[in-house]
Formats: sequence, C-alpha cells, structure tokens
Amino acid sequence: MNWRFSRQAGALSSSIIREILKLTQKSDIISFAGGVPEPRLFPIPEITEVTIKVLKNNVAQALQYGITEGYLPLRELLAERMQGYGIKADADNILITQGSQQGLDLLGRIFFDPGDTIITELPTYLGFIQSSSAYQVKFRSIHMDDEGLQVDHLEELLCQNLSPKLLYVLPNFQNPSGVTLSLERRRQLSQLSLKYSLPIIEDDPYFELRYDGEHIPHLSSMECAENCIFLNTISKIITPGHRLGWVVAPKEVIRRLVQAKQAADLHTNSFSQRVIYEYCAQGYLDGHIKYLCQEYVKKRDAMLEAIEKYFPPQMRWTKPQGGLFVWATLPEGVVSSQRLLERCVDAGVAFVPGSAFYPDGDGNNAFRLSFSTATEEEIEVGIKRLAGVLWEVCQEAPSRLTAAQQ
Amino acid sequence: MNWRFSRQAGALSSSIIREILKLTQKSDIISFAGGVPEPRLFPIPEITEVTIKVLKNNVAQALQYGITEGYLPLRELLAERMQGYGIKADADNILITQGSQQGLDLLGRIFFDPGDTIITELPTYLGFIQSSSAYQVKFRSIHMDDEGLQVDHLEELLCQNLSPKLLYVLPNFQNPSGVTLSLERRRQLSQLSLKYSLPIIEDDPYFELRYDGEHIPHLSSMECAENCIFLNTISKIITPGHRLGWVVAPKEVIRRLVQAKQAADLHTNSFSQRVIYEYCAQGYLDGHIKYLCQEYVKKRDAMLEAIEKYFPPQMRWTKPQGGLFVWATLPEGVVSSQRLLERCVDAGVAFVPGSAFYPDGDGNNAFRLSFSTATEEEIEVGIKRLAGVLWEVCQEAPSRLTAAQQ
Repeated sequence: MNWRFSRQAGALSSSIIREILKLTQKSDIISFAGGVPEPRLFPIPEITEVTIKVLKNNVAQALQYGITEGYLPLRELLAERMQGYGIKADADNILITQGSQQGLDLLGRIFFDPGDTIITELPTYLGFIQSSSAYQVKFRSIHMDDEGLQVDHLEELLCQNLSPKLLYVLPNFQNPSGVTLSLERRRQLSQLSLKYSLPIIEDDPYFELRYDGEHIPHLSSMECAENCIFLNTISKIITPGHRLGWVVAPKEVIRRLVQAKQAADLHTNSFSQRVIYEYCAQGYLDGHIKYLCQEYVKKRDAMLEAIEKYFPPQMRWTKPQGGLFVWATLPEGVVSSQRLLERCVDAGVAFVPGSAFYPDGDGNNAFRLSFSTATEEEIEVGIKRLAGVLWEVCQEAPSRLTAAQQ
Repeated sequence: MNWRFSRQAGALSSSIIREILKLTQKSDIISFAGGVPEPRLFPIPEITEVTIKVLKNNVAQALQYGITEGYLPLRELLAERMQGYGIKADADNILITQGSQQGLDLLGRIFFDPGDTIITELPTYLGFIQSSSAYQVKFRSIHMDDEGLQVDHLEELLCQNLSPKLLYVLPNFQNPSGVTLSLERRRQLSQLSLKYSLPIIEDDPYFELRYDGEHIPHLSSMECAENCIFLNTISKIITPGHRLGWVVAPKEVIRRLVQAKQAADLHTNSFSQRVIYEYCAQGYLDGHIKYLCQEYVKKRDAMLEAIEKYFPPQMRWTKPQGGLFVWATLPEGVVSSQRLLERCVDAGVAFVPGSAFYPDGDGNNAFRLSFSTATEEEIEVGIKRLAGVLWEVCQEAPSRLTAAQQ
C-alpha cells in the first residue's frame, strides 16, 4: 500500500530527546539529558493511600466516562489554588488536559493556521516546537538574557506589522535555559500585551519548584490577565504518569478548547482525576512541594558547584533559582553540541544539544543539563567527565576560540 | 480581547449527545440516549485487586513518564490477543491511545488534508464525524441494509475517480445502527480495497459483545489486511474511565501515529496502562466478556420484545446480534426525530436523533436507542412511553404516512 499522508504528517518529527535516550541506555552513562522528575521523590505512600480511597468510594463513577471539561471537584480545587496565586479563575475557566502537552496541542488546534506567526523565547520548550510545527506555523524568536525575554526586542518585532497570533513564554526556570523572567520585564510585557492585543500563553510547569528568591507574580495575574492563557501540570510536582495538566483561560477560549478536546480524546482519565483530586484534597501537595524543593536544591547546588570547579574558563552557564535545568554555552565555533554529545557519550555522560530548543535548528554552541535524576555523587562524576571533554575541545580549537572570545 | 481562532476551530462543534444528556438530567427520564456501558457491570473487585498490585510492585515506574508507543508488555499482550482473531500483529504494530477517539483523531491528523474525500457508512459513528470534520474533509456516504455497507454502491463510487483518502467502517453491531457487515460483504470489500488501493479504518469496539451467531472474521484478517487499520478499546469490555484504546496498523503508519501522539500528549497514562495490563495478564478479560454478554443480552431482548409489543406497525427497527444499540426508523415525513425527542422528553424518555449520525445532518426520520444502562424494567417502561408518542405522531400524520408507505 502506498499510504498518502497529510501535509501535517509531513510536518511532524520525532523528538531528538527520544533518540538521545536510546544512546544513554548504556548502564555506565550518567545522563543529564532527560527532563523527567526524580522517581525516588514520588509521594508513593500518599498516592497509594488516596488511590485505595478512590477504589473504595464510588469507584464505578471513577471508571465511567466523564465530562470533557474534567472532574468538577478537581476543577474547583485547582481554581482555588490558582486564585491563591492571584490568577482569577473559577471552575468554568479550567479545562483538565492529558498533561500540559495536550494543552499546547489543543491551543495549536484552535489558534494556528498554516503560515501564522508565533513568537517564542529563544531557546524555547521542545514540546511546543513539536506541537506547533505540526500546524505549520512560522516562528519568530526573541533572545533571552539573565532577566529572560528581551522585551525591547519584542516591541521592535511587534512594530513590524507581522500580526503574530500569540507569544509563548515559560517565565520561571525556563525549560531549557533555567532563566526566570524578572518582575520588571513581566510588567513591561503586560503593557505590551495590552497595547498590541497580543495573546500570551504562559506555560509554567516549574514555578512551585523555587529554591531561592521570592515568587514573582504570574503574567496571568497582571493587568494583561484577560489576554493570558495559563498552563500548569502535576507532572513535576506530583507524578507525570497520571498525565494530568490544566489550562486556565477566558471562557470563550475554554469553550473552543473543550470542543477540540472532545474530538481529540473525549476526556481525561476519570480514575486519575479522582486520585489527584483526593491527593490535593487531603492537603498533601504543599508539604510535598516543600520536600521536593529541599531535595532538588541539593542536586542543583551539586551541579553548579561541580560546574564552577571543573568547567574550563571559556564556558558560560545559567544559575537557575528553581526548576530542573542548567543551560551551558561554549564560545561560538569551538564544536557543535551534537558533535560534543557524541564525544561525551564515549566519556560516559549525556545532555541535550541546544539545537533541540531552537525552532530553526540553531543553538549549536549550547546544551541543556538536567540535574533532576542523578544523585549528588553522580552529578559530581558526570560534570567532571563532561568538563574533561570541554577542556579538550577548547584546547583543540585555540585560534577559533580566541577569535570568538574577542 | 478579540481572539483570532483558526479555521479548524471554526470547523469544530459540540456533540449533540452532550446537549441531550443535559435534557435527560431530570430524574424521572428513562434515557436510551447515552452509549455508555452499564457501570453496574464494571469488574470492580478485579480492578481493585490489580490496581493494588500495581501500587505494590514497581509503582514508581507506573507513575513516571513512559514511551509514546505505550507500555511494552501491554502491547505484546494485545498483539497476541489480536493474533487470536487472525490479525497479524506484533508489539511494533500497536500504538496505545487515549481511548479509540484518540486513534480516530491521530489518524485524521496523519491522513486528512482539507478537501479530502472520506467514505463512510450511513449512518456512521458521531465521534468520527466530529474528529474528521475538524480536518475539513468531505464525506461521501453509502447507505446500509441488513447486511451492512452496500458494497455495490461503494464500487460505483470508486469508479467515479474521487480518489478517496480512505473508507471508515464499523463492521460489528455498528454504532448507531446495530447492523453487522456480513461475511460475503466483507470478502467483497476486501477485494475492492485491493483493486482500488483503498485504505480501510476498521473501528471495532463492540465485536466481543456478541449475543447471537458466530464471530465473523475481521477485514484486518482478510486478504486486504495490509490496507487496514484496526481500532479497538477497553471502554466497552472493561472500563471507559481508564481511557485506553489501541491502533493496529502497518509499521509505517504506526511510526507516523507515534509522531502525532508525541506532539498531542506525549503518551497514554502510565498507571492505567499497567492496571489494564495486570487485569488482562491475570486472565480476567475473557470471563468478564462472557459475563457482559450474559447480562447485555437480557437488556437487548427486553428492548426488542418491548418494541415488538408496543411500537406502531409503521415503525422499522434493527435486531442487533451484539453491541449496545437499536436503530429505529419512522416513515418519511411523519415528524423530525428532533421534534420527536422534545415530545418524548416531556413523556419521560430520551434517545439520540438520527441526524447526529449523518455527516450532512440528514437522517431525520430515524433515532438511536441504547439498551446498555437502563434496567429491564426501565426498558419496558421507557419503550412504552416512547411508543405512546410514536402512535400519536403516526396518527397525526395519516395522509403523509400513507403516501410514504406506498
């Protein structure tokens, strides 16, 4: 059979991370590649307790079809939680999704036509590049500095009459860069959103994993709130396997998303929605987040200390206040991070090359390091291995290096 | 904010069944509208047992991210099960989906471009109309008789140079009509598929709920197998709340579906995949299906007997050998089934008007009755109420009726 696939099928691609994960199956590799949470930190006794509770009480309802919007008590609970962060929402502003990835996909479905212009940070989240690419959009990207998205550059872009469909931002401890958008920049962004009627997707899976500094208000709680669509998920703060995320948006947007989700999969897993509702209703979540922060900060510190100790002086890296990722940058022209990865895998350590996070495939002199699943000891050993290769490549390319540093 | 939605968003609609479900919230209504399985038949002790087993053994893996294709032991088990029905498949031919609805949506994504022609039975499954409409396809439909799709008419259509993307069929106890495609027709269809290189989506959620007669081989087990994509789900034979379906297809198609699913939601719920794997691995499924058939056949018989007893002689209806649905037809021009529904709701009974199952909104003289969730007593009472309204409308329109019967 000569299958005739759609244009959208032609725009789909496999995640580079999947390919890397295959590389890192060798048992002696220390992997900083995956962005998955540390399974040793899953709240197993509490999940067991609430799962058994769901099995005992009205389990038939938990095994039956449910409404597309999601289990009402869970939406009410999440709305209240969002309100605690200054995001005005009631249950009707919330759609439960099959993880945040489905939120991104459904948003693409209701907003993106082929050829639409979408603005992102640079680098940006790989999963957004994947889901949006399928809708054949054009990406315009804005570089970040230590305070996040360079809002001045955004305004320059907005003056160009591109009529972008929306802006996609990950404001806290961004995946992949670890960078946080500063309060001042958020305020500027809020004003720009209002001035240019620019919708914003605020994708924020990590904000509660903050290890230093104070919580910064969400864009979705600022003046531009009515232009904002907020995405959140339990994947990094409870468990990813339950595939549970949610979208907070104006009712007009939720109505469209519900129609799209109905066509996509009818509704999210009823059983898992009730398990997670019970977990939250029992009051376990805040204590667990505090515990996660206590544990992840040790891993982050171990990684930053090892980097400081072992990396050659030509390297630059970010110092995330939370989340799971450090972004490291080589001087331009030394070696591609793809080639670097091959050498590192031989040396027993892995990461994700920066190009995975650039819609145009650029970003070749950077890479993402995740400190989530390695132990502190493995982090020290892994960074030492990585640094060994970095010293080699920097010494191999002294002339280009000097030129690049000038 | 003036939200600028996509063209695809404009092609989405809400399910009429959702609207009807709102109508039927009144406690004294006997509803034959929903197509959901009987929750009193869920295998709750066994699900409880295997869920606790998953919680006890390697639960961290069941709570972690998984691969897009789905949990390998589950795919191996399903492949073996499919082989038992003559469908050649190994684990690499299977993608685990978030219910069959996601299978349909992902197939739309990888196959359908706006303007493509899709062939369906008439009537056809509402969820397929919904998901495909979003991809802005054109439907060409072929009427059914007691043996299912009229294959002669299909060949006439195939001769017209329409270059259809594919044929979508529900061969067993079709939702909504209850009709089964005969063996002879399947053989003819297999030949046509080969002759015209016509891909077939064989959507078969009900085939194991057979109450009379012998299993008929699947199209996917016939000569045309390599042109076939087979969809199945646990929703009607175990539980719908776990949202678990699967696609069986050639590897080339699976590869594209995996890419599409990765962009759509990364993967299906890890926990539920393991629960359902354990349920099947414990050997519970076949016995449970036997039990379901014993129980559902009583409901089917109760409905057919009540219809026989109470319906006016002008009515026609199907006699399904399995599944959950009976399809009833009024003489043309008596009353629209939408208007009939309003009167029936006043009389305390509900169904789904036929137009929901016609891509062009036709089908106004027919309606779908589900016998799955009402008790035998409720079925008797509900059909009596419905028959009361049918006698009225048939008497109100004697002249048109007579004309239509000639």
